[in-house]
Amino acid sequence: MPKNRDFNASCPISINDYPNVLLAHGSGGTLMNKLIEGVFKKEFNNKELHKSHDSAVLDIDSSRIAMTTDSYVVEPLFFPGGDIGSMAIYGTVNDLAMSGAVPVAISVGFILEEGLEMDKLIKIVKSMQFAANKAGVDIVTGDTKVVDKGKGDGIFINTTGIGLIKHKLCIEPFSVVDGDAIILSGDIGRHGIAIMAVREGLEFNTVIESDSAPLNELVSKLIDSNIEIHCMRDLTRGGLASALVEIAKTSKLQITIDENNIPVREDVRGACEILGFDPMYVANEGRFIVFVKHDHVDKALNIFHSHGLGMDAKCIGYVSSKNHGLVTMRSCIGTMRVVDMLSGEQLPRIC
Amino acid sequence: MPKNRDFNASCPISINDYPNVLLAHGSGGTLMNKLIEGVFKKEFNNKELHKSHDSAVLDIDSSRIAMTTDSYVVEPLFFPGGDIGSMAIYGTVNDLAMSGAVPVAISVGFILEEGLEMDKLIKIVKSMQFAANKAGVDIVTGDTKVVDKGKGDGIFINTTGIGLIKHKLCIEPFSVVDGDAIILSGDIGRHGIAIMAVREGLEFNTVIESDSAPLNELVSKLIDSNIEIHCMRDLTRGGLASALVEIAKTSKLQITIDENNIPVREDVRGACEILGFDPMYVANEGRFIVFVKHDHVDKALNIFHSHGLGMDAKCIGYVSSKNHGLVTMRSCIGTMRVVDMLSGEQLPRIC
Repeated sequence: MPKNRDFNASCPISINDYPNVLLAHGSGGTLMNKLIEGVFKKEFNNKELHKSHDSAVLDIDSSRIAMTTDSYVVEPLFFPGGDIGSMAIYGTVNDLAMSGAVPVAISVGFILEEGLEMDKLIKIVKSMQFAANKAGVDIVTGDTKVVDKGKGDGIFINTTGIGLIKHKLCIEPFSVVDGDAIILSGDIGRHGIAIMAVREGLEFNTVIESDSAPLNELVSKLIDSNIEIHCMRDLTRGGLASALVEIAKTSKLQITIDENNIPVREDVRGACEILGFDPMYVANEGRFIVFVKHDHVDKALNIFHSHGLGMDAKCIGYVSSKNHGLVTMRSCIGTMRVVDMLSGEQLPRIC
Repeated sequence: MPKNRDFNASCPISINDYPNVLLAHGSGGTLMNKLIEGVFKKEFNNKELHKSHDSAVLDIDSSRIAMTTDSYVVEPLFFPGGDIGSMAIYGTVNDLAMSGAVPVAISVGFILEEGLEMDKLIKIVKSMQFAANKAGVDIVTGDTKVVDKGKGDGIFINTTGIGLIKHKLCIEPFSVVDGDAIILSGDIGRHGIAIMAVREGLEFNTVIESDSAPLNELVSKLIDSNIEIHCMRDLTRGGLASALVEIAKTSKLQITIDENNIPVREDVRGACEILGFDPMYVANEGRFIVFVKHDHVDKALNIFHSHGLGMDAKCIGYVSSKNHGLVTMRSCIGTMRVVDMLSGEQLPRIC
């Protein structure tokens, strides 16, 4: 989930251009970055906000603590492979993991709409505890607000997580260097298509389930094996494309990837074709990319392949210093194309 | 703001009694406690949730870290003495302060409704940074979601705070003992009446401003002066009455207070009479109670009286072990009455 990288972007917003908030301001694309740059980063004055990463990293006492926040407004509340509750836990756990932090504690803030069915709430709460157990994290504090009917949408959940950073690595976009290899943990696009299938009432031969899952265990294995990790990013709103573009822009380096190495399930690809989506931009909830020192790639891939969430991991490309901030992709038919952020809205309320 | 004490209450809820969420489930009264007991505390399994206090206190590495969360859904967004932005900072700072923690970092999660005027958003964001500066805390990470028009209400804000606990005190309801003195930091009821005046279009001779303010500096002075503090609680939803009842029930002790010592401004008292409210139950945003060792009360009052936010502080009562969990009040005319929680909704969306 975008958090403090939410508060990082490249172009100023003029209030005259956008007198009102649009759905696309929450999409993870160019408009959202404009809002962040022109409003949040402009007014909120803190160096952590400028690091453009999934968590803030704080030195408290003698400890390095990661902190991250996310609100979840996904619609529908329940979907194949998950629900708003499990997603709210895994999403925040994953953001901590992306700093290499071991998740310690999560807070939960509920905004309930008057009239929400109590059995739905209980199902979601049970799902959160199940997910917390699976991720090995404690839900330590909470808050509940209720808004009038028609002023919310069933349930919105904020989770904020703190984690402990024990390693000495500096895992952030600024640490990416020329020559780094980029590993993608598995196939892309499942979460977005799972949500769209429910919304649009699409049926496939097999049910497409969200990839929503906690990534902290796999990340810990990489760190404990002394893989020299320079950056990690989970692929959420805006998909693989947006994550790569953000890191290329922040690190001021070029990223070149190979489409042949990016796994997309056949049913997901088919659904994307029907819906007019590019899988590169479709949201995921249990996939991530990791930038590693180039001669650590084989060792890292071995660790991925020995874990249930990384069995299909592949090296999808490399970093170079040729063109600052550019992402290029060699397509399946051998042509090169530039990968950019979406400017508008592809899938509102995907997370 | 209620947080993990949100997850503490005395009676079970049956889903058959309440098949749907009501506004009163968010009011800070009995129904909210039933929801917390019957759903959240039942499903979320963590010892911190049972401590019934404003923040969770975590031992991380060798540090004691307090963590607290709150979502803000106040309506209207702007009111005399504050707005949703300043409130979202002060409320969370105050919850940390109530554990005696020094606020270190705050995360911000925005849920924006499509169509929100950009100039309102900017005004709120500026107000948050101003409040953060005043409270001496950093906004370190954030998240933005946008929901469709009609599925939100302008803006909801979650803030989660972490703070560092440096003292050796154990400030929580379980630490309250027979004989403790209870100090109230100032007059009550202003925040709730300020909000209601805007909603109802009421006009008074003087504008009643919310008491919203950061309490961390005053609390630090108390701690640094070695006042033996047993418990603190800021008075928010449910007002002074609910805070006292919660602490009496959790500590299993009796609290006896004197109405003559509870300051209520004349205009606030008048507005309460017009609106049919009891000031004891009206929300505040910058007032708190502190339970201190009985022979520290004069020293503590001196510190209160030397600070702008405690000038009208008074000792309002004492703790005894006579009746477990009971709060009694000697009224202005000398009669005794039992103070209980509200069962329903007095002021929805007050914070």
